[in-house]
Amino acid sequence: MPLKAAILGTGVIGAGWAARFLLAGWDVAVHDPAPGAEARLSATLNAARRVLPMLSEVALPPEGALSFVTLEEAADGATWVQESAPERLDLKHEIWAEVQRHAPADAVLASSTSGFTPTALNEGKGRVIVAHPFNPVYLIPLVELVGQHTGNAAELLRSIGMYPLEISAEIDGHIADRLLESVWREALWLVNDGVATTEQIDEAIRMGFGLRWAQMGLFETYRLGGGDGGFAQFLAQFGPALKWPWSHLTDVPDLDDALVQKIAAQSDAQSGHMTTAELTTLRDDNLVALLRALKQRDAGAGKLLNTHDKSITPPPPPPGPEPLLTLRRTIPVDWTDYNGHMNESRYGQLWSDAGDTILVTIGMGPDSPGAQGASWFTVDNHIKYLTEVHAGEACEVRTAVLLAEGKKLRLHHEMWVGNTLSATCTQLLLHIDMATRRSAPPTPEVAEKLRAYAEAHATLAAAFG
Amino acid sequence: MPLKAAILGTGVIGAGWAARFLLAGWDVAVHDPAPGAEARLSATLNAARRVLPMLSEVALPPEGALSFVTLEEAADGATWVQESAPERLDLKHEIWAEVQRHAPADAVLASSTSGFTPTALNEGKGRVIVAHPFNPVYLIPLVELVGQHTGNAAELLRSIGMYPLEISAEIDGHIADRLLESVWREALWLVNDGVATTEQIDEAIRMGFGLRWAQMGLFETYRLGGGDGGFAQFLAQFGPALKWPWSHLTDVPDLDDALVQKIAAQSDAQSGHMTTAELTTLRDDNLVALLRALKQRDAGAGKLLNTHDKSITPPPPPPGPEPLLTLRRTIPVDWTDYNGHMNESRYGQLWSDAGDTILVTIGMGPDSPGAQGASWFTVDNHIKYLTEVHAGEACEVRTAVLLAEGKKLRLHHEMWVGNTLSATCTQLLLHIDMATRRSAPPTPEVAEKLRAYAEAHATLAAAFG
Repeated sequence: MPLKAAILGTGVIGAGWAARFLLAGWDVAVHDPAPGAEARLSATLNAARRVLPMLSEVALPPEGALSFVTLEEAADGATWVQESAPERLDLKHEIWAEVQRHAPADAVLASSTSGFTPTALNEGKGRVIVAHPFNPVYLIPLVELVGQHTGNAAELLRSIGMYPLEISAEIDGHIADRLLESVWREALWLVNDGVATTEQIDEAIRMGFGLRWAQMGLFETYRLGGGDGGFAQFLAQFGPALKWPWSHLTDVPDLDDALVQKIAAQSDAQSGHMTTAELTTLRDDNLVALLRALKQRDAGAGKLLNTHDKSITPPPPPPGPEPLLTLRRTIPVDWTDYNGHMNESRYGQLWSDAGDTILVTIGMGPDSPGAQGASWFTVDNHIKYLTEVHAGEACEVRTAVLLAEGKKLRLHHEMWVGNTLSATCTQLLLHIDMATRRSAPPTPEVAEKLRAYAEAHATLAAAFG
Repeated sequence: MPLKAAILGTGVIGAGWAARFLLAGWDVAVHDPAPGAEARLSATLNAARRVLPMLSEVALPPEGALSFVTLEEAADGATWVQESAPERLDLKHEIWAEVQRHAPADAVLASSTSGFTPTALNEGKGRVIVAHPFNPVYLIPLVELVGQHTGNAAELLRSIGMYPLEISAEIDGHIADRLLESVWREALWLVNDGVATTEQIDEAIRMGFGLRWAQMGLFETYRLGGGDGGFAQFLAQFGPALKWPWSHLTDVPDLDDALVQKIAAQSDAQSGHMTTAELTTLRDDNLVALLRALKQRDAGAGKLLNTHDKSITPPPPPPGPEPLLTLRRTIPVDWTDYNGHMNESRYGQLWSDAGDTILVTIGMGPDSPGAQGASWFTVDNHIKYLTEVHAGEACEVRTAVLLAEGKKLRLHHEMWVGNTLSATCTQLLLHIDMATRRSAPPTPEVAEKLRAYAEAHATLAAAFG
């Protein structure tokens, strides 16, 4: 039988919690006395239903049952009660008093509060903890867990795909909001003083340290600045900056020997199992994968990289008797799999991109899909994998136009790594009317251009066809 | 003829600059009087040579020429002079006085300084600007540009694939280091006070807001908290927190009407062309792509997701006369291309993963590659693309074992979206001895298990083979 979560409050945070539990297969009983709660929940649930399953390489379990009920009904029989009410302590006290009259004695009782401590929430007589998540709750894994009565909360969070960070000290803002609030307050100063606009601040983040922080945090990133001397060496070099006016936060701890040793030891425990060279490789490989993900989305730094690619792309080769040089590139680290070589799927990107080079010459490349109300779709690929290929290797694709007749275009691609033929693909594409998304003949002009390639490659077609 | 960059200083930052210019095809003349400079530069150059080309879908231009020379020779004829000397103002004054005696009158003269302003660097008589980059300089695009004499610096930075952020005001720490220094100082307090360890702080970042900041900054992310009311609504809700003790940075600007309107207007100019729903979709799609990139790297939040996938993966199906259900999943947004559908390459991931499901049953899945000193490599795929498939659609793969004989394993995969057969693949795998990475017969035990599947599918083999 599915476990039951009680969701109290359907703001952005509460609705995100509902989505997490529901899509993990839990039954979810929602309580929210405010008007429009059901519609608000529904909007966030639908956003989550669209993207959360995309995170997984397997299907999620079937959704649990969703119900709108009273506070008492919600709490009854719940394994987890999550309160995401407005940040008013009196209101939270009222809700938790009522919940604790009805919830099972071993239920996890958790508040989403950003600022209040469990002690403030409980007033000495409850067992409420803090489980503080981050927007969008249905995608960001972090949950800060604070309090005496966490029970099996961490295990349950992991079972629904989230990351519990157990914090032993109770302070206003927990950990993440302390950091966020500092940078937020500094950002307000920058805008207030006319130093930067909101957009400049956002670009300073996402084109810079935001990329680093998606894969390593502050300390592991800075550790690399200290080289093999670890964090103590970094502090020796950059500690003095604490005395400089680089921030409005001028109240800084005294960086004495004890604090230096404490940080250095914690950083060693965290990252000391890797040499500087290993940590550099890890960081760089992660950054390559993240930047390439952003390229695929044409977002942020990825958009910049796509624009740069265009500026260094050579013109497509004119027709001629030899196979055309349709692609030259390096195999990126995110194309490899558990066997340590390029995964069979990623060869498909080579054929796709090499085919696009041919299409560019007829004005139908990636920059102008449907420019003529038409595109070309691949309908058949026959791929032969001849040798293993590894990240970092440079390769070329050479392409012969075997056939260009009516709606059909047949290409033969060879992938070369140095003097080694590493893979081949015979690719059949159909010309598509993008209005109907069905096959249709190309314009005579396009057909004529493709025929010129096919004629030039008549001898190759006889060999490869 | 290639342009020439003069690189003064070969620390981590200077060497990163050298790599950026060199790999963009510039000639690079390096000057550094410190012992070991050449070896230090070489280490960073090699790290950059490994990963920078991976960012691009096309080949980079040929590397320029690298030379170690005197300061005078470096500056002579340079289009760009980049100084990355230690942060001592007297030293920088000395270097720049000498450079300005020898560099062309229209050269960009730029310092990597984190803290000093152009005014401090120039003392009223030079034309030095700040061009402040971020580690690793060869991957992170951001360069803060400050000063009167930027000339064509922004354009040149874009031409080598970097992102110039032009800042009109001169303040210590520019923009990014103001933000970084604030969060760094707050983090030091958290460690100092025993609230969190360096590792907890790093996890709070990379499992949480670090993911958001790789694709949107602070303001665009928070704008979503205000719903359709824009940033003014966010500030109405979260402004009061500025008075709460959520950070050591207690010196906050007065959030009066003028500042609220200034921020709201800047945020509108930045993000007002998108509705909340559009901005949510953009953020969520970007996060899916970033999280999936981290999964491929098994790093940070990606490692968590991989572990979670394992916990919800169903056991592989036992042999039986029907095709085996080898995969059920949702098509993620990062698998689509400019035609708006799943790219031809990504089908290959389905066949790869479906094949792995069969291998899991014989103890040779992704968790145990080479567990028996052996694996299976795909050597031939014949793929037929039958219908278009879109992000968000759920699909199943059903697999028949056509042949299991000696070193050979031939599978037939069908991809179903609902009741529509969307693609098929006939896949030939060879059993590989991982010591020699050559084909070799499997153990009798493995061969026997595969034969059981093939026997159960004898009728299917006749139909698909």
